[in-house]
Amino acid sequence: MIYNAPIKDMLFLLNECFGLDTVRALPGNEEVDTDLLETILEEAGKFCSTELLTINQAGDEHGAVHADGAVTTPPGFKEAYAKFVENGWTGIDSNPEHGGQGLPKVLHVLIDEMLGATNLSFKLYAELSRGAYHLLDHTASDEIRARYLPNMVAGTWSGTMCLTEPHCGTDLGLLTTKAVPADNGSYRISGAKIFITSGDHDLTENILHLVIARIAGAPLGTHGISLFLVPKFLVNDDGSLGERNGVTTASIEHKMGIRGSATCALNFEEATGYLIGEKNRGMAAMFKMMNIERITVGMQGLGFSEIAYQNALAYALDRHQSKAPAPRPDDSKASDPIVYQPEVKRQLLTMRAQIEGARALAVYTAMHADIMEKSSDKKAANDAKDLVALLTPVIKAFFTDLGMSSTLSAQQIYGGHGFVREHGMEQLVRDCRITPIYEGTNEVQALDLVARKLTGSTGEFADRFFAEWLAFAKKNKDAAATTAMQHLIEATAWFRERHESDDAAVRGAATQYLRLFALAIIGCMWTKSVAAMKNQEGGFYAAKRKVARFYAEQVLPETGSLLATITGGDAALADFEITDFSD
Amino acid sequence: MIYNAPIKDMLFLLNECFGLDTVRALPGNEEVDTDLLETILEEAGKFCSTELLTINQAGDEHGAVHADGAVTTPPGFKEAYAKFVENGWTGIDSNPEHGGQGLPKVLHVLIDEMLGATNLSFKLYAELSRGAYHLLDHTASDEIRARYLPNMVAGTWSGTMCLTEPHCGTDLGLLTTKAVPADNGSYRISGAKIFITSGDHDLTENILHLVIARIAGAPLGTHGISLFLVPKFLVNDDGSLGERNGVTTASIEHKMGIRGSATCALNFEEATGYLIGEKNRGMAAMFKMMNIERITVGMQGLGFSEIAYQNALAYALDRHQSKAPAPRPDDSKASDPIVYQPEVKRQLLTMRAQIEGARALAVYTAMHADIMEKSSDKKAANDAKDLVALLTPVIKAFFTDLGMSSTLSAQQIYGGHGFVREHGMEQLVRDCRITPIYEGTNEVQALDLVARKLTGSTGEFADRFFAEWLAFAKKNKDAAATTAMQHLIEATAWFRERHESDDAAVRGAATQYLRLFALAIIGCMWTKSVAAMKNQEGGFYAAKRKVARFYAEQVLPETGSLLATITGGDAALADFEITDFSD
Repeated sequence: MIYNAPIKDMLFLLNECFGLDTVRALPGNEEVDTDLLETILEEAGKFCSTELLTINQAGDEHGAVHADGAVTTPPGFKEAYAKFVENGWTGIDSNPEHGGQGLPKVLHVLIDEMLGATNLSFKLYAELSRGAYHLLDHTASDEIRARYLPNMVAGTWSGTMCLTEPHCGTDLGLLTTKAVPADNGSYRISGAKIFITSGDHDLTENILHLVIARIAGAPLGTHGISLFLVPKFLVNDDGSLGERNGVTTASIEHKMGIRGSATCALNFEEATGYLIGEKNRGMAAMFKMMNIERITVGMQGLGFSEIAYQNALAYALDRHQSKAPAPRPDDSKASDPIVYQPEVKRQLLTMRAQIEGARALAVYTAMHADIMEKSSDKKAANDAKDLVALLTPVIKAFFTDLGMSSTLSAQQIYGGHGFVREHGMEQLVRDCRITPIYEGTNEVQALDLVARKLTGSTGEFADRFFAEWLAFAKKNKDAAATTAMQHLIEATAWFRERHESDDAAVRGAATQYLRLFALAIIGCMWTKSVAAMKNQEGGFYAAKRKVARFYAEQVLPETGSLLATITGGDAALADFEITDFSD
Repeated sequence: MIYNAPIKDMLFLLNECFGLDTVRALPGNEEVDTDLLETILEEAGKFCSTELLTINQAGDEHGAVHADGAVTTPPGFKEAYAKFVENGWTGIDSNPEHGGQGLPKVLHVLIDEMLGATNLSFKLYAELSRGAYHLLDHTASDEIRARYLPNMVAGTWSGTMCLTEPHCGTDLGLLTTKAVPADNGSYRISGAKIFITSGDHDLTENILHLVIARIAGAPLGTHGISLFLVPKFLVNDDGSLGERNGVTTASIEHKMGIRGSATCALNFEEATGYLIGEKNRGMAAMFKMMNIERITVGMQGLGFSEIAYQNALAYALDRHQSKAPAPRPDDSKASDPIVYQPEVKRQLLTMRAQIEGARALAVYTAMHADIMEKSSDKKAANDAKDLVALLTPVIKAFFTDLGMSSTLSAQQIYGGHGFVREHGMEQLVRDCRITPIYEGTNEVQALDLVARKLTGSTGEFADRFFAEWLAFAKKNKDAAATTAMQHLIEATAWFRERHESDDAAVRGAATQYLRLFALAIIGCMWTKSVAAMKNQEGGFYAAKRKVARFYAEQVLPETGSLLATITGGDAALADFEITDFSD
């Protein structure tokens, strides 16, 4: 397997397509410039394509192991994690107050892409920890922040998010884990959690579990859920590790993929927990962080797409089979590289056109995440917040769907060699397969988009947002993007008409709408990319213009049929009763 | 995992939708009637959902094992194979002359669906054998047929197809395996073959390899390839097994799925081989059988879709999570079964609508395969041959793509529980993944369709075929199917204009065209199904009408965007040069 971090394209997006001015103008970002970002991206790319990619296949073969009550990570993970910590990657976007580097999100999403591409199992140990860090940094008391966060930034302690229980995943309101107040202001947490990523492992000295539970007497449903910090080892007043807390690892899951990642079933038995934020407000705090985490998961999908594309291209350039259509590259040969087969070229271009467009959308969204967090301009920060809220489910779902279609397509280009394990293509498919499922399934993302993001203030923002990009596409005479945006606006109107009156219709067309949304807005990202290239000539720009054209002519037409299925078909769905399934 | 063979739907197609008259009128089919077919389908369904399904998961876990030069099948496979033989399943469509039952193909494709659904790894041991049997029955001399075939029908000997070599899969013209004439009229075969399904195993006493090789001095390319029978054990004149032939198992592949199936690398070292058919005509003989095998692979994809659908439906009826849109099934509950979520219902209906429509197409095509083989009416037999030739690549590619989309969708409905191994959903995805790859990748099918089946006599037949189904859709006032057929005819015209002038454009739009073809013709199968129900009332018919409507309104609109990408975009593909990939 090869991986070359797509730094050229990343820098094009940062410097030329969107520009760094807005991000640099934010407080704390004074030192952020092209040179700094380029250096960091190159270092990250090097780390990923050497340290992480090389242990990825063995990680899959050995898997994480649960024995004698402890979890061991696969060979090489400990050494790689030590270097990861040493190089400062655990604190890159953390608060300088806790020893972090406070670098912008727009940089971090690109690093997320690289980590996701080269070793998702490894990445997850750090990723969930980072999510837990930000959640604590936003929500916990000063005392807890001071006591726990520096060690998280330093990478010596890590964190988890404990949400799912055997009977509830999507619907966390059903959870039964209990919290009983103890004398000293802490709580006793009891219950069973499943699917806890990095729930136990041997990479850090302590693990800080962020657990949602119901305090005795709290209301049912999501409004009775509180958030607790439950360390694996209790922490003494001097910061040293104390006794083992009442949390044990019951088992780890045997999974289709990301087998190097320990997915744990954890039992909490009167474990000591500390309330984080307000009572019964745990879901709100958790969701705030889950939203950022959802973009991160989207970047995993993009990373899988990129590494799948790179390897499929390399294979297609190397594998000779059958003759190309005339004019052949070399008439004297018995066969040509399969990349000359138009169908193989199509598959590669379909990946590339979506990958580059999606990356532009990621950079655009992450820049707004930075504005949302740091801008002193209230209006700008608020608009950015709406933009991020609107695009988060689109990025999570579309990018991970793209991860699946790209890894499957790359595997297909390898033919039978893609089905055997040695080339690693089948591992990409298996590892990527979790991304459309976790952090809220892609169907849940679509429901979030149509039910929450098209309504209220984000809904008002959406209208402005669509109108602006439609105008931009028109101004740049991009007929395909213009049509796609018109389809999006028309589909949005269909939902608006039904929000109050027909919940089932709204929910039933959600995934189609999310896909239409993503295709159309990525169409505009291509308009923007092409406009940003101005009259620049040369290989990179010339190729990118051709990819843009391919996207417009070969990918975007799907919005037409999506619109037709959305606006034409709710009756066919509604008409079919659940009892009809048994006939 | 559950599996209930969809016999009700199968019988509807056989008895009501298409009727058995034509098949019964064929010589040798005098005893074929509804009762007989129903009895056999029920027996097959019982065998599959008990004997085969129960050993499928262990087959995946243990896999086939290669040690000390021999291959061992997973636990339970030997016992199941003994029952399979005992019940006569190895000879169901074989020639009565060799002890077979000579039952029609239309029955066998439905059994193929069941076998594919419940245990593809097991099925492959018998399936390749059956392919080899038919190839020998069509092509070999009377002497060879008499000597080898009765044991194949009895299931005590099995067969393989040895085509692929390390450097050639799709392009077999590049093969290097050599055949040197020996004194006694036999040949000495030497070379390395890979990806040989059931290349070695412990289920039968002998294995008959059908090997393609080049006789010393034969032309390069596919016109210099001959076909040989190379038994694992030579057969004495009295029919007893003689010495071991010069074929050894170098290794078996470690694969993403169908791990219970032994995929072998075989070395032939001066092995004794017998020429089958004429010198240098091996590919033609092989392809004749591969076409039937391609329909069989399509049925595997359909089987995967069906079992994925059944289990996802059962899970969705059982798993309570979140509230359904009003009116809820039970307002007193905290949550409802997820099948009430419109998006889950949509995914299930999307599977079902395609599965039932595809099954209709399979029955329709298989009936024509019977006519092609047995009809004494030359014109009817010839038309049937064209019909089967035209639809074979469509069935192979679309059905296996459907297998992937259905297994992935079913896994998605299970959420995180679909990603862990215990529920078996992830195994379905892994096992199904080979079907779009082997027996000619789906891209090769699409090329076959546009390059060979839209031209010449099959091309002329295609025009009549499209016109007839368009007229049928119109007559039945099926607007959606009418539009889809018009799209298909328009797209076909686009190819016709370019067949001579623009090979690259033809090849580059082939997969889109195959998908459009499949969607449109399955639309007509739904027209036919609905028409066949006449005024029949009751659950089965009422549900089927609703599924038909869902297909028309929610699945068929895709033909519009497919037509747009076909007719609108060859320049975007052509414009991108191979060298642009490196920019």
